[in-house]
Amino acid sequence: MRVLITVEYYGKNYAGWQRQKNALAVQQVLEEKLGLILQTKVVLVASGRTDRGVHALRQKAHFDYEGFFPVKKMAYAVNTTLPDDIRVLEAIEVPSDLHAQYSAKRKTYLYKMYVSRTLHPVKNLLSAQISYDDVDFDKMQEACKDLIGTHDFAAFAATGSHVKNTVRTVFDASLRREGEDIEFEITGNGFLYNMVRIAVGTLVWIGIGKLPVTAVQDMLLTGDRKKGGKTLPPHGLYLKDVFYEDLSSLPLE
Amino acid sequence: MRVLITVEYYGKNYAGWQRQKNALAVQQVLEEKLGLILQTKVVLVASGRTDRGVHALRQKAHFDYEGFFPVKKMAYAVNTTLPDDIRVLEAIEVPSDLHAQYSAKRKTYLYKMYVSRTLHPVKNLLSAQISYDDVDFDKMQEACKDLIGTHDFAAFAATGSHVKNTVRTVFDASLRREGEDIEFEITGNGFLYNMVRIAVGTLVWIGIGKLPVTAVQDMLLTGDRKKGGKTLPPHGLYLKDVFYEDLSSLPLE
Repeated sequence: MRVLITVEYYGKNYAGWQRQKNALAVQQVLEEKLGLILQTKVVLVASGRTDRGVHALRQKAHFDYEGFFPVKKMAYAVNTTLPDDIRVLEAIEVPSDLHAQYSAKRKTYLYKMYVSRTLHPVKNLLSAQISYDDVDFDKMQEACKDLIGTHDFAAFAATGSHVKNTVRTVFDASLRREGEDIEFEITGNGFLYNMVRIAVGTLVWIGIGKLPVTAVQDMLLTGDRKKGGKTLPPHGLYLKDVFYEDLSSLPLE
Repeated sequence: MRVLITVEYYGKNYAGWQRQKNALAVQQVLEEKLGLILQTKVVLVASGRTDRGVHALRQKAHFDYEGFFPVKKMAYAVNTTLPDDIRVLEAIEVPSDLHAQYSAKRKTYLYKMYVSRTLHPVKNLLSAQISYDDVDFDKMQEACKDLIGTHDFAAFAATGSHVKNTVRTVFDASLRREGEDIEFEITGNGFLYNMVRIAVGTLVWIGIGKLPVTAVQDMLLTGDRKKGGKTLPPHGLYLKDVFYEDLSSLPLE
């Protein structure tokens, strides 16, 4: 039986999703606690990694299980053993050919930031400070649209990443502002390493006048990472949701 | 010269505002860092204590200073030395008879909570979980109005507090709901020990049907703490603002 779990976590205390040798990862905590509850070895396959310090509102992961523990009670049971910064929101049985990573059709990321010269201790837990008096939000919105479409996003990958195919499709990208708070949301069929944090960093650099409003276009045309903005810090980034088209036709009980 | 500072802090790592012998308090950190910057002993008098784990969006405190460091630069200077969970938002000179505690005319507290059987790791940093399927929000709103006015709030004080006068005036109290998120805001001329957390806990117990909608009235009439709900945890509570009538007429430069 294949089980798909939906996981929320606050990433500050973890070396990211994926198991590491010398640092605690979300995957390791979940595999251990699920293993204890289900009395078997659990190997999780996630929709993808999240980096050190990045959060997830609805990360998805699957595992195979041959046992008698009811799927409907797994989330509740494992949650009683998890630390407060990780929770399983849901566990459902899925077809055995559904793969948390390869079957994912779309992913949505959210980046939260606030424009303020003073760090705000409360909101800084969930949101990254942009330490300027203001940003040109209209320009940021204009450039944001350039992210949408099927492009070679090579310029939006962290140096040192070695993916062969850097073409990705961004279905939607948008910015919302309320006072000093800005949210960036982006949905695509996949993302390169640090792609969201580089994209939003480039929009911010356009907003503060360090880059022209054409910077996103320039990056897409030239493939040159140096034409982009700074990679923003991980604590503003959330894996918001992962979508599997097949699941829409599944009975959820 | 008397200086009034506005302070924001996230309270999780502190034993509250007030200096303690064996635990770190916000006051101690601020006094030490201000003392280093101003090269003198700084003694802060706050608008009032906040308890262990409680946050502040705009706590106010005054201190007296005889030196040449410009007041306008104090916030920026001390912020470069403070940990990320404490920031001075503003420092201004005020008349020497203004007292952060005794001159305060009104204080506003905010309590953030969410109604969910599952703990949510991200929002749980800023908000307290109400672990129920739902609450009767209409009843909570009805009872909330009973808090408004000048009453003997003896039933809303933690047992073990020994204040002589338990009469306080609540100018406003209101609840807002958005999905599973609920915010309680209360403004008064002063608050007894744990008064806000007992008040909101009573409203929640009314909402989940553990207390009648008349519970606030019953408490005010009888002075009986046992007729109220549970004291909610500190991590949902924020000292939102403190108001000094005199200051409205003050030039801020």
